[in-house]
Amino acid sequence: MNEVINLLKNHRSIRKFTSETLDEGTIRTLVEAAQSASTSSYVQSYTIIGVTDPAKKKALREVSTQPYVEDNGHLFVFVSDYNRHKGLSEEKGTPISFDTTESLIVGIVDASLAAQNLAVAAESMDLGICYIGSLRNDMQRVIDILELPEGTFPLFGMVAGYPDQEGSVKERLPFETVYHENTYDGLEKTKEAIEAYDQSIQDYYKARTNGKRDETWSDQVVNMLNKKQRHDVHDVLKKQGYLGQ
Amino acid sequence: MNEVINLLKNHRSIRKFTSETLDEGTIRTLVEAAQSASTSSYVQSYTIIGVTDPAKKKALREVSTQPYVEDNGHLFVFVSDYNRHKGLSEEKGTPISFDTTESLIVGIVDASLAAQNLAVAAESMDLGICYIGSLRNDMQRVIDILELPEGTFPLFGMVAGYPDQEGSVKERLPFETVYHENTYDGLEKTKEAIEAYDQSIQDYYKARTNGKRDETWSDQVVNMLNKKQRHDVHDVLKKQGYLGQ
Repeated sequence: MNEVINLLKNHRSIRKFTSETLDEGTIRTLVEAAQSASTSSYVQSYTIIGVTDPAKKKALREVSTQPYVEDNGHLFVFVSDYNRHKGLSEEKGTPISFDTTESLIVGIVDASLAAQNLAVAAESMDLGICYIGSLRNDMQRVIDILELPEGTFPLFGMVAGYPDQEGSVKERLPFETVYHENTYDGLEKTKEAIEAYDQSIQDYYKARTNGKRDETWSDQVVNMLNKKQRHDVHDVLKKQGYLGQ
Repeated sequence: MNEVINLLKNHRSIRKFTSETLDEGTIRTLVEAAQSASTSSYVQSYTIIGVTDPAKKKALREVSTQPYVEDNGHLFVFVSDYNRHKGLSEEKGTPISFDTTESLIVGIVDASLAAQNLAVAAESMDLGICYIGSLRNDMQRVIDILELPEGTFPLFGMVAGYPDQEGSVKERLPFETVYHENTYDGLEKTKEAIEAYDQSIQDYYKARTNGKRDETWSDQVVNMLNKKQRHDVHDVLKKQGYLGQ
């Protein structure tokens, strides 16, 4: 296993950072690494907003409810972005559309590939990161805080900084449950492996909480998906010009 | 700049591979690196299908129209997947839903972060990769070929293999157009930088085609987004149980 694979497999979320801030050169290096990821048809349909204004960080923390959104660590917000293309299309007099589900997919994929490159780059520099999906708790509020125009929406945030905690690697689903050959393997084929995994995760939670948390992976994700969350996302996306049809 | 950042910034798509195939150990290493990426609330809502059956590869090439889908190189298809969670929920008698736009976003983001880790891991092993968004040319056909059940859909493919071409790094948008601070900068603020970029891309295309391709980046993306593509994606997603509301 080479050093890069080691780095990837050693990923853990870091939610507590020292007071040392990222300097401009580091931010530029991280963003340029992000931009080097593949992009669908060269469209580069995302923008990254670095949030340094304390009032904005406080407001975003209120949306997320996670303290590390406001605390130390550089806060990046990844934005799906066709506003730039729309402006250029108006200059050229060539209309464009991005209101299909296909365009939504492209915007999300482009931003996500860039974000993961930024995460890997950060960890290669001994920084820690944590994704912040909870900015979608109130997407409209994030749009207002960051003044995001038509054609854009905030996908997720990421904090990056100098770690002030160890974090721990969380075991993933067994290889054979996630990698199938030629056709999709239904649950019955991978059931045993998932049961073993459930046991392992249950043991992990028990050990970390002195027995208080007694939950398998299946329990955790089924309970989470049982609660419908973030119903407003669809309407906010429509308001921003997505999903018109 | 460290070696990992160098690797990321040196990314180029590779579309031609030698006949050397990826061995099982390599595939496992790549998939495990993919799985190490962050996942929203631990949901791990994706499956990766390795396609080795020549008939299936031929059929997928017909969907994509890209020869490298069928040729040498290992073909991975990244699938957004809540089928696993649905099966587990039925066993537990706890209903779940994944028909919100929020769940669609989570499935796409989870699969994309994993895919980009796989891409980085592959390149660290001197393999080349190319994403294949064109599998979305006919999503229903891909679903049929790979026998994808309710709760799943094919997001994109990726070929990975031993490079039989150099490829070339394609210049990205200037840093200041993509990275904004605290609020979104409209096109007027980044116009000059985009104009310089347009010139640079036009020069690049001209040089590579002996002057035949005379297109800026803005031209290319505006013309691409002028054509509405893949209208069927929305209905296929609904059929698979997504976007019900």
